Amino acid sequence: MADIIRKVHIGVIGAADCSDTAARLACEVGRHIAINKAVLFCGGLGGVMEMAAKGAREEGGLTVGLLPGFNFSDANPYIDIAIPSGLSHARNMLVVRASMAIIAVEGSFGTLSEIALALKIGRPVIGLQTWDIGPEIIKAQTAREAVEKALHMVNRQ
Amino acid sequence: MADIIRKVHIGVIGAADCSDTAARLACEVGRHIAINKAVLFCGGLGGVMEMAAKGAREEGGLTVGLLPGFNFSDANPYIDIAIPSGLSHARNMLVVRASMAIIAVEGSFGTLSEIALALKIGRPVIGLQTWDIGPEIIKAQTAREAVEKALHMVNRQ
Amino acid sequence: MADIIRKVHIGVIGAADCSDTAARLACEVGRHIAINKAVLFCGGLGGVMEMAAKGAREEGGLTVGLLPGFNFSDANPYIDIAIPSGLSHARNMLVVRASMAIIAVEGSFGTLSEIALALKIGRPVIGLQTWDIGPEIIKAQTAREAVEKALHMVNRQ
Amino acid sequence: MADIIRKVHIGVIGAADCSDTAARLACEVGRHIAINKAVLFCGGLGGVMEMAAKGAREEGGLTVGLLPGFNFSDANPYIDIAIPSGLSHARNMLVVRASMAIIAVEGSFGTLSEIALALKIGRPVIGLQTWDIGPEIIKAQTAREAVEKALHMVNRQ
Repeated sequence: MADIIRKVHIGVIGAADCSDTAARLACEVGRHIAINKAVLFCGGLGGVMEMAAKGAREEGGLTVGLLPGFNFSDANPYIDIAIPSGLSHARNMLVVRASMAIIAVEGSFGTLSEIALALKIGRPVIGLQTWDIGPEIIKAQTAREAVEKALHMVNRQ
Repeated sequence: MADIIRKVHIGVIGAADCSDTAARLACEVGRHIAINKAVLFCGGLGGVMEMAAKGAREEGGLTVGLLPGFNFSDANPYIDIAIPSGLSHARNMLVVRASMAIIAVEGSFGTLSEIALALKIGRPVIGLQTWDIGPEIIKAQTAREAVEKALHMVNRQ
Repeated sequence: MADIIRKVHIGVIGAADCSDTAARLACEVGRHIAINKAVLFCGGLGGVMEMAAKGAREEGGLTVGLLPGFNFSDANPYIDIAIPSGLSHARNMLVVRASMAIIAVEGSFGTLSEIALALKIGRPVIGLQTWDIGPEIIKAQTAREAVEKALHMVNRQ
Repeated sequence: MADIIRKVHIGVIGAADCSDTAARLACEVGRHIAINKAVLFCGGLGGVMEMAAKGAREEGGLTVGLLPGFNFSDANPYIDIAIPSGLSHARNMLVVRASMAIIAVEGSFGTLSEIALALKIGRPVIGLQTWDIGPEIIKAQTAREAVEKALHMVNRQ
């Protein structure tokens, strides 16, 4: 089956409670993910997760939300595929594993846990105004640069 | 956001090692899921999972595979959205929670665990030549009937 | 480290809402687990789980409760080591994996999911008035017989 | 049941591959946990996890190892209660939830993910030569001070 071409999965992580700047960045990140025909993965809730999904939707992209709780209706309105995991914050690991590269936008401790899990298992992490915990996080200045770097990292794997 | 219309998620469960009859049934189930514009969820591996995804693909449907392992490449070639959970058989619960109704085709102990988890948390289970553990499993004779009953159960929720 | 002698872990599974007969059986099962110096594992809640832990405690045994929720206080009063998993019913898989053999007492769909997961991954299951899903479940008539058969299965592994 | 007195659970987190200093610190932490009659929780593997369990054992303490893999034999020789979760790194969340307070000794990305998850869900984190990600980590200079601070945080909850 040499002709199977898997879609690229890009995860966008960040807090449900985020700054206006992070919201704008996340929306732009989502747009560029969709423009590049990648699938957007996120935690499915509000804030950065919602704005990234909104941006992807505006460009006709596909969005997947891996929810911590039990209800499909917990997902923000821009999620196409809502997956209620029932695993609480253990779903953070699912977001990381489902993504081939991860873009972190700002974020608090939940985001930091996802960054650390990603680095632990070897998923590339691109950072936009997020935790500065070492050179393993690939820094980007703009949403477009972040998505380009994420795609570059996936393609060289 | 009263106009959000979530897609219907139908899970198809069954063994990686299945009979020819089960393979044919699973493929037909997948076709009818896609014809009815629902999203197919499954465990992403071979046998019933693969045939159901194949059928859905043939009708232009969207397929999601919740994998037990760590690699995207574990998914069968008909999976659009492969999610490597890394949770081993604990991913059975994810398949159940991600689905609004479940169609069991034949199946061994893994399938039985999913049927039981589904009934435990209140997801409707439609059975096609599967475990006979009581009246809670809604029986169907054909793939088409199984999908119709699954959709009916989702719509009345 | 050839002299490491791991304690035997016996899981007791059954419903939180159980019959008087199941409660008595579970308590006797717990007693015999403790008398045989094995550690009792269970889901940590009421009914069969509580009565098994009570029985083990009465004989000075150690009891571990793998809880579905978030609070230590969800455990019944006879649990020594309460582990709030936050995984909801996905913790059923933890109960199975933590146990070297499993004794099912009566039980409903949650119990059935654990029996099926156990058989899927090769953990021996001893049944006391529980689901009759095939010869893979080793039947026992008394609590003592169930514990003896469980220990026998662990020792021959 | 007002007279139930739950044992205090202290988690010790750190890398399987650690410095000599971290190994010595972890062993001392384990000793003080046992001296204070608390139960030691850890990831069950080598390095900091093994040395902490060794220290606790030397003082007659009880040790629990929440393993990422499938085998009881993955546990280091100082683990009394080995729990193979089969959840891979998602078991990090289990270590956090099972502990009432957490002591981080040095550590790499896996440890950072546990620190972040702990702070996310409100478990106190005491740091010994570990990640410096903000004032939420309570710093300690010695193993004894770390355990005292951990117990203090649990008791005031």
